[in-house]
Amino acid sequence: MIQIAIMGYGVVGSGVAEIISTHKQSLAKKAKEEIQIKHILDLREFPDSPFAHIFTKDFNDILNDDDVKVVVEVMGGVKPAFEFVKACLEKGKSVVTSNKELVAKKGAELLAAAQKANANFLFEASVGGGIPIIRPLNQCLAANDVDEIAGILNGTTNFILTKMIREQMSFKDALALAQSLGYAERDPSADVNGDDACRKICILASLAYGKHIYPDNIYTEGITSITLEDVEYAAAWGGVIKLIGEVKHLESGKKDVFVAPMFISHDSQLSSVDDVFNGIMVRGDSTGDVVFYGKGAGKLPTASAVVADVIDCIKHLDSRKYLFWADSNGEDVEPYENSVAAMYIRVTQDKGNAYETAQQVFGNIRRLTRNNATANECAFVTDEMSIKELRAKISQLTDNGVNVLNSIRIGDL
Amino acid sequence: MIQIAIMGYGVVGSGVAEIISTHKQSLAKKAKEEIQIKHILDLREFPDSPFAHIFTKDFNDILNDDDVKVVVEVMGGVKPAFEFVKACLEKGKSVVTSNKELVAKKGAELLAAAQKANANFLFEASVGGGIPIIRPLNQCLAANDVDEIAGILNGTTNFILTKMIREQMSFKDALALAQSLGYAERDPSADVNGDDACRKICILASLAYGKHIYPDNIYTEGITSITLEDVEYAAAWGGVIKLIGEVKHLESGKKDVFVAPMFISHDSQLSSVDDVFNGIMVRGDSTGDVVFYGKGAGKLPTASAVVADVIDCIKHLDSRKYLFWADSNGEDVEPYENSVAAMYIRVTQDKGNAYETAQQVFGNIRRLTRNNATANECAFVTDEMSIKELRAKISQLTDNGVNVLNSIRIGDL
Repeated sequence: MIQIAIMGYGVVGSGVAEIISTHKQSLAKKAKEEIQIKHILDLREFPDSPFAHIFTKDFNDILNDDDVKVVVEVMGGVKPAFEFVKACLEKGKSVVTSNKELVAKKGAELLAAAQKANANFLFEASVGGGIPIIRPLNQCLAANDVDEIAGILNGTTNFILTKMIREQMSFKDALALAQSLGYAERDPSADVNGDDACRKICILASLAYGKHIYPDNIYTEGITSITLEDVEYAAAWGGVIKLIGEVKHLESGKKDVFVAPMFISHDSQLSSVDDVFNGIMVRGDSTGDVVFYGKGAGKLPTASAVVADVIDCIKHLDSRKYLFWADSNGEDVEPYENSVAAMYIRVTQDKGNAYETAQQVFGNIRRLTRNNATANECAFVTDEMSIKELRAKISQLTDNGVNVLNSIRIGDL
Repeated sequence: MIQIAIMGYGVVGSGVAEIISTHKQSLAKKAKEEIQIKHILDLREFPDSPFAHIFTKDFNDILNDDDVKVVVEVMGGVKPAFEFVKACLEKGKSVVTSNKELVAKKGAELLAAAQKANANFLFEASVGGGIPIIRPLNQCLAANDVDEIAGILNGTTNFILTKMIREQMSFKDALALAQSLGYAERDPSADVNGDDACRKICILASLAYGKHIYPDNIYTEGITSITLEDVEYAAAWGGVIKLIGEVKHLESGKKDVFVAPMFISHDSQLSSVDDVFNGIMVRGDSTGDVVFYGKGAGKLPTASAVVADVIDCIKHLDSRKYLFWADSNGEDVEPYENSVAAMYIRVTQDKGNAYETAQQVFGNIRRLTRNNATANECAFVTDEMSIKELRAKISQLTDNGVNVLNSIRIGDL
């Protein structure tokens, strides 16, 4: 029998306890040990829970209990999760987490602590919820050089965009619907501003390239500026708008990493990843494109990924899984202004011909049209250019009396 | 340094040797050991190969070399691969294979031999080529009861169907194109008759449910009877025809396993898996639907999956990966006549009204239409029924002067 502890009894934590109870026998078969939850740490009271007798408010009950070999951290946030997790690892306990903020901000330090103590620090649930991605990326693609990873990593924004695309809802209405369905928080900023997707692409990029890529070094753009006009123009272009987290390996050895909305062609598998689903494309030099698809969040999907990691910890109590990246100072990340893409640009011009002005500034452009466009409206797709060039040309447009309403990257997935 | 041997220097075997050469450093980092190929077994001569000096025609050179810890079997077929693999395992060597026929027909026996000798027998490349599916199914989904697996498991037939759907090629022309492009063999029967897909769903089902499910016990239907009329009716219904290998866990505990072409709704992720790509949907009780997508065949994708397994063997030389299923006598498989589905049926009737006859026989049916249908042609979709009922009703139709030209399952994915 193996005893574990759970820190945090919110949505995921209660799901972990539930799965361990409901799948007791099959888990014991897979782990070759029966799993028993000895402590649950939460400051709240749960008198009606079937686990009421094992709750504690004191982290030391877990830290100092040598019977506890594996600790599940599902509290969220960095404080106090980071200190708690680090202390557990230093005591030689293995830790499993679903906390993407923790892994994205403190992964290198925690992986080093785990290595030092010969313990495991696993976080399959931190990206893609119930979709297996961390382990396949680490193990199955071991024989590949990863050229690129691009993913729809945030279910909330994907739900909002899907409603805008399929039902012509405004961003505001779609967000309100997402909130009423429990898909978006009351303060949705971490989702709609792209921060959640940023944490996840940082985790995937760090794992794929072996060096920590920190969220603070990554250009992150959300979906709050996307309008139904943009959605219509994306359709006219032959695709849909998706919020993509992407990392590309550049020839220089640096990584082009960013989160931004993108036009995604209907030819891409990611274009059909709708609603709250996530999809992650890994482009390996040997495998070509491999795509992982499923529910990126939710109680049981996320909890099942946590429990699978718990089983893996139990099977490797005396050995270490090879899952590691080194710390870094951010110099591996190419500045975003050097990132290269074709761009969609939507403008108006009150006097003069916006399209002609755009042609003068950008050279070769392809005009897009939509029904019910206003007379002074114009949208077009440029050739590839760096973000620095783009910004300079947008300034030129503005100087020539053109109002630039939005610009969105064209995906090359 | 770890020494390995490769048995078979065909497409996959030469790819394995190539990846081990081209990725030498990154593999050494991942395996924590340098990998050296000591022997390559092949009856053919490869005087110009960079590996010419290590070829052998004698299996005993590998079997009796105690330096060889891991053996890669990529010969294909059961004879002599089965004897060779079993002998290696009995000697305590770990074996990695991409040979789906071997795993589907002899998996239980080889897994037992591996267990007895405390060696590993890994076969990630046997299903889905470069798509990680065996390991995610085994490990990441450990905390799920798997309710269903359904997949497009054969790239050749998917290429043919895609050409029929997108370019209105006949089956015959699409097959000829596939052959000219090297996607189909000169004798394409194992692909187009569904045997290859059958082996793969047997492997997935055996792994998911822990008991060997043998190809001989599985109903297997290929795509040779699919016509462009069927493709048009599938479009009218709202989907596409795909060759699906499927296993469902029934309430009785038995498994409904089969390979058959199916109408797949545009709402399913599998509907957009085109050309030579594979897609595999795993429906877990906690995760919901998870889909894995990528190239299901090809030299480097398949070889990269083999090499990833080699690394895993090297990391587990003294321990065993938990990857196992027991033997069985086939009684876990529900007879196909009890399988339940709604059906698409295409008929003609020379005298009388085919649709009215069909209504009399089937009760509630939904008629499908297509442009340029002949006057005596009729296609419809039935309610759900067992295959036994379906066959009885088709007999009734025939007795009433209706010619049944084709019947295809409606997928509920």
